[in-house]
Amino acid sequence: MNRHTTLAALLSACALGAVSAAWAAPPPTMDSRALEAKFDAQIDPAEMGGWLKLLAAEPNHVGSAHDKTNAEWIAAQLKSWGWNARIETFDVLYPTPISESLELVGGAGAPFKATLTEPPVAGDAATNTKDALPAYVAFQGDGDVTAPLVYVNYGMPDDYLALERMGISVKGKIAIARYGGGWRGLKPKLAQDHGAVGAIIYSDPKDDGYATEDVYPKGPARPPHGFQRGSVADMTLYPGDPLTPGVGSTKDAKRLDRSQAQTILKIPCLPISYADAQVLLASLDGPVAPANWRGSLPITYHVGGGAAGGRVRLAVKSDWSTKTLYDVVGELKGRDAPNEWIVRGNHHDGWVMGASDPLSGQIALLAEAKALGGLVKAGWKPGRTIVYTSWDGEEPMLLGSTEWAETHADELKAKALVYINSDGNGRGFFGAEGSHAFQHFVNQVSADVKDPETGVSVRDRLRARLEVLAADPGANEQARATGKIAADPAKDLPIAPLGSGSDYSAFLQHLGLASINVGYGGEGDSGGVYHSLYDDYEHHSRFVDPGFVYDATLAKTVGRMVIRLADADLPVQRYGDFADTVGRYLDEVKKLAETTRDQAATQKKLLASNAYGLAADPTIPHAAPTALGQSPATNFAALDVAVAKLKASSAAFDTALAAKGAGLSKPQKARLGAAVRPLDQSLLRPEGLPGRPWYMNMVYAPGRFTGYGAKTLPGVREAIEERRFDDAQKYVGVTAQALEAYAANLDKATAIVNGG
Amino acid sequence: MNRHTTLAALLSACALGAVSAAWAAPPPTMDSRALEAKFDAQIDPAEMGGWLKLLAAEPNHVGSAHDKTNAEWIAAQLKSWGWNARIETFDVLYPTPISESLELVGGAGAPFKATLTEPPVAGDAATNTKDALPAYVAFQGDGDVTAPLVYVNYGMPDDYLALERMGISVKGKIAIARYGGGWRGLKPKLAQDHGAVGAIIYSDPKDDGYATEDVYPKGPARPPHGFQRGSVADMTLYPGDPLTPGVGSTKDAKRLDRSQAQTILKIPCLPISYADAQVLLASLDGPVAPANWRGSLPITYHVGGGAAGGRVRLAVKSDWSTKTLYDVVGELKGRDAPNEWIVRGNHHDGWVMGASDPLSGQIALLAEAKALGGLVKAGWKPGRTIVYTSWDGEEPMLLGSTEWAETHADELKAKALVYINSDGNGRGFFGAEGSHAFQHFVNQVSADVKDPETGVSVRDRLRARLEVLAADPGANEQARATGKIAADPAKDLPIAPLGSGSDYSAFLQHLGLASINVGYGGEGDSGGVYHSLYDDYEHHSRFVDPGFVYDATLAKTVGRMVIRLADADLPVQRYGDFADTVGRYLDEVKKLAETTRDQAATQKKLLASNAYGLAADPTIPHAAPTALGQSPATNFAALDVAVAKLKASSAAFDTALAAKGAGLSKPQKARLGAAVRPLDQSLLRPEGLPGRPWYMNMVYAPGRFTGYGAKTLPGVREAIEERRFDDAQKYVGVTAQALEAYAANLDKATAIVNGG
Repeated sequence: MNRHTTLAALLSACALGAVSAAWAAPPPTMDSRALEAKFDAQIDPAEMGGWLKLLAAEPNHVGSAHDKTNAEWIAAQLKSWGWNARIETFDVLYPTPISESLELVGGAGAPFKATLTEPPVAGDAATNTKDALPAYVAFQGDGDVTAPLVYVNYGMPDDYLALERMGISVKGKIAIARYGGGWRGLKPKLAQDHGAVGAIIYSDPKDDGYATEDVYPKGPARPPHGFQRGSVADMTLYPGDPLTPGVGSTKDAKRLDRSQAQTILKIPCLPISYADAQVLLASLDGPVAPANWRGSLPITYHVGGGAAGGRVRLAVKSDWSTKTLYDVVGELKGRDAPNEWIVRGNHHDGWVMGASDPLSGQIALLAEAKALGGLVKAGWKPGRTIVYTSWDGEEPMLLGSTEWAETHADELKAKALVYINSDGNGRGFFGAEGSHAFQHFVNQVSADVKDPETGVSVRDRLRARLEVLAADPGANEQARATGKIAADPAKDLPIAPLGSGSDYSAFLQHLGLASINVGYGGEGDSGGVYHSLYDDYEHHSRFVDPGFVYDATLAKTVGRMVIRLADADLPVQRYGDFADTVGRYLDEVKKLAETTRDQAATQKKLLASNAYGLAADPTIPHAAPTALGQSPATNFAALDVAVAKLKASSAAFDTALAAKGAGLSKPQKARLGAAVRPLDQSLLRPEGLPGRPWYMNMVYAPGRFTGYGAKTLPGVREAIEERRFDDAQKYVGVTAQALEAYAANLDKATAIVNGG
Repeated sequence: MNRHTTLAALLSACALGAVSAAWAAPPPTMDSRALEAKFDAQIDPAEMGGWLKLLAAEPNHVGSAHDKTNAEWIAAQLKSWGWNARIETFDVLYPTPISESLELVGGAGAPFKATLTEPPVAGDAATNTKDALPAYVAFQGDGDVTAPLVYVNYGMPDDYLALERMGISVKGKIAIARYGGGWRGLKPKLAQDHGAVGAIIYSDPKDDGYATEDVYPKGPARPPHGFQRGSVADMTLYPGDPLTPGVGSTKDAKRLDRSQAQTILKIPCLPISYADAQVLLASLDGPVAPANWRGSLPITYHVGGGAAGGRVRLAVKSDWSTKTLYDVVGELKGRDAPNEWIVRGNHHDGWVMGASDPLSGQIALLAEAKALGGLVKAGWKPGRTIVYTSWDGEEPMLLGSTEWAETHADELKAKALVYINSDGNGRGFFGAEGSHAFQHFVNQVSADVKDPETGVSVRDRLRARLEVLAADPGANEQARATGKIAADPAKDLPIAPLGSGSDYSAFLQHLGLASINVGYGGEGDSGGVYHSLYDDYEHHSRFVDPGFVYDATLAKTVGRMVIRLADADLPVQRYGDFADTVGRYLDEVKKLAETTRDQAATQKKLLASNAYGLAADPTIPHAAPTALGQSPATNFAALDVAVAKLKASSAAFDTALAAKGAGLSKPQKARLGAAVRPLDQSLLRPEGLPGRPWYMNMVYAPGRFTGYGAKTLPGVREAIEERRFDDAQKYVGVTAQALEAYAANLDKATAIVNGG
């Protein structure tokens, strides 16, 4: 479900302070270089394009015939390439729409009936399908409501604060939000929390339509009647089947009653096109929307809330039956360490044809699998076991990966070293996010992959891009800091932390398995057809990755990672990078605490002096903000101690490994591997994060109010952001415990290197 | 011609570092308070509204019948209020359109003929006039050209750098630019400099149309067929009659031949509405416009430059005859110092009805004049002579004020103490720009004027606004710095430097007369009808200043300034504020020099490593930027010395005046006044600024590439910005000389205070 790796993501990937100098690790040996060359030689973009055409020939959402056909075809391919492959099924709650309607019943422009289906486009026969799901978001709440409409901008928490100051409430009303500014599912959830009886989400052409590029089929951007499907299950609470939190939804699993499932929305919700949204938005009265709320429709954006504004009727009814997921799991058994797993995955279900999302990543995974199979046929044996997974049901809420991870939790915790994910892929720049102990490894690999458009390494190309962006006079502080790192060829490029929105979540955040997510993007962005009918073979091959050269480059990138990880006799991790990064996160959180206190103090002063009243235009509805209240100081001492310990332990390990690693005996190396493999599980705490126990990783989590976006040291950071100061203090301790445990376990590994 | 004082202007007014603590000057005496109360009591908003209705009843551009009628009416009013008033006429070159047309003759959408006239709107009978000027910019170059169209965003220097990198030239083409980003006249001038054969300017709804507010008559914003007239004479070279630079265009003045006048554009140019612009822009091919080039029209913005894009025919023919200007000049003779003048002005000519611009300021000036006359009738006599001026021909290029100032230059240099200007006025927040020695005086006055919407002083209201803006989490560094000043009630609020765009220019920048510009704005902004048919009584009274209460507040503000300045027996100036501000400007210029060097060094590195090539999308036209070349260091020592001297001299004067001013004898006070009055003339240097000798003030100038926007220490700052490093070094010396002269003259005044 992740959007293509865009330049914005690449940049956020680079929100970094200092990065330690590159480790003088030896490059891959000549043997492994030759192996990688043989691997590359088997990657055939034309063949990949053929696979894409086949897999994206029909709608392939969960429950569709083509979804199952694809799973079976993928399993058959893997087998034909020498993999031990099987399909694992899960039975999950998965609602599909029975009926739905959206009408403007009052106000200017009424009556008007929203389209809710996407018309075929000339010159792209595939868009003539009758099997596409209509406008629809999974796990919305059924209902039939008629109420006044209110425009809530992106529908994020700040937008509700602004509404409050305008004296406008969504209580008893239907909220219309534009896509962007945060994860889709937060929009109806926050509307519901504020008392709305229904929610509508639309793609504004400013963010996703004609303002960004020519629209399909002339260009890649979203056409007027295209809309974005998606899931609105509360991912920030837990992903996977809403009825089986924390356990696999196997046949016999104990299930919640649907009414108990906290991740299902209670109000009806539909996504609509901007052609439809224009009519609804033009019907609104009330104040003119604040400047940063305005999109690119040719109207004056109003907020609503008056007596003469638009009224809409929104009705949705779903089939809430259980559907079957088809996860494909393939295995190449390891020679030396069959019980050590390198896990790699990409989902295969789409919202309609899913050519870019997810099948462009899926064909990379398939190309890797074929080439790895080819290497095995040619005599190579991976040192560790390689597990390739093709997930179903990612789109509705990471169902296939989460249920599989929960089902095989014990085995994964015992055996898995890392999970490598990809999703939809695009053209342009390398992007990677993940666990920071692998930052140097990611740099090493990306330095050895050639960019198809320029011929330099994908790392050097990204480096150039970051330098050029930082040189722009309008560059912000973050871009400039990143540019400074990029300008030093001795430094690694930073990777970003993982939030959510793709299949790594259960592995990283529930099981404590180090994870890496990889993709290309930033050119010819396909955002315009994201989760629409138009994300098909024709669009992907014309605009997103002509010639499938970046899909092939993704295969070469991940394939290298898999080969090196499978064969590495010593850990590739560099823990100093992790420790430095966590130290930087702690600095950020301390700064946040300070800013939070300052803001409250300033607000108190401004409230006391009636500055808000004096600063407002009295002819426009306005109210002073709600008082923030006291901001007790948080004592960070426990985290200071833990981070210092983590830094010391990391330095000791990295130094010892560099000095003595090569001299270790085979049994020592095996013991070292076994000590290091489960290390990230130390970051889990059984109580989980405040209010969301499924998320147990104390360093990486998706934000409660960002969704896709990561929050690092989330127990502390989010508590301060949300002014839950008791939680903040408590999670300083809990997070420090996790880091102390991590450092202590790392010390044990160091002892092994030092001959212990 | 100035746009209403908007919040943006208020904020730029506050680009400030530290400001010294408020001077413990005594408040106005009870006598003067009583006088000011009597003054206020005579300000009648309803009467002012009546004047506005009368003055704005018909189009009143230069050469129109109503323009002359208005001048005569104003002169008669002044006389009836006891002023010695006269009309001074000047004969100026002033082209008016004979014929004009703009057609799309090729590309998608052709053929299409642009409207070029503004339709009347329902419910506003005044818009039915037949006498409005059509779409037209004064001092464009006549011509009839047919060429491909290229979109150049705002048409500013950075936009041409971006075009160059896209491989697109305007040479031999017609450039279409949107309003905004810099002064109107720079757009066709820069297009011409880059080889364009014609230029079109339009108002994009993003900046000035439905995206900002509901359009007229529902709301205040520019309707689809509204357009912005204006002048495109090269104001940055010199304002006033193009044929008489530096001298008054009296009957017998020596005139240039029109072909010699460097301020007249050579290519044809027209302004158009966004309804028309949409058709032209939609015809463009070539690359999609960069993100920050896109407006709010419902199209994908392209740049053009391809083979299939729009071709337009642009034809303009003007009547280049001489027209007569009618400046009204009124005088209230001073009792004590009849040869010391306080000059106050506001223009009376508009582009059509000109209700907001300029007549809202004109009715304030009239209300002041009537009330001052009333005070005189009641027995008051101003200490100094008060000169009220109602300018004609401001819109075409500050004609009336410039020609008058040039004609009376010697007398003004001998007698004038300050020039106080206003222009179009609005509702909301107090705004002032001007000579920084008057910053404290402006603060004192604004602390004594009551805001009609909130009842607090207009200074306190502005203070609250600046504090609230600074508290916004998204506030930029400048807003935060200003907020810090505003949060300290012991500190004065900063005023901004003056650029150009209204009638103060000749006084401040050519004659070295300290100037202050005052206005209200920031609420119910009337930008939407700026220089259009719709800027009429109905619009002003409905949206801009209902009840004319801020127009009345402007009268109370300026009236106070005039009374206090006329009666002050000691200088109101505080030179420490000027010295501190100049010191800050020097810091900025040094930082600029550093940034300029860093940018060139970075660019050199990026060019050498082909980073620009690697960072670009190869499927989109792109080129590396032109090399900036060497950036020799500038030696600022002479300015360091001069600023230190200025600070020391200012501190000495301020201290001496505070300690001993009150004890001076009447003759000493007179000598002191005479010493201080011409002080700002020290800032003039006879050689003027590089390439534009008319601008002689070495501290304040309009930017060569900003127009309205000020450049301070312009000889040095602009030379560094434009990489003319020889000029930069030369003007360090020239500017230092001016500041040294200023300090030396100030020392003479200090000697008088000290009993010399």
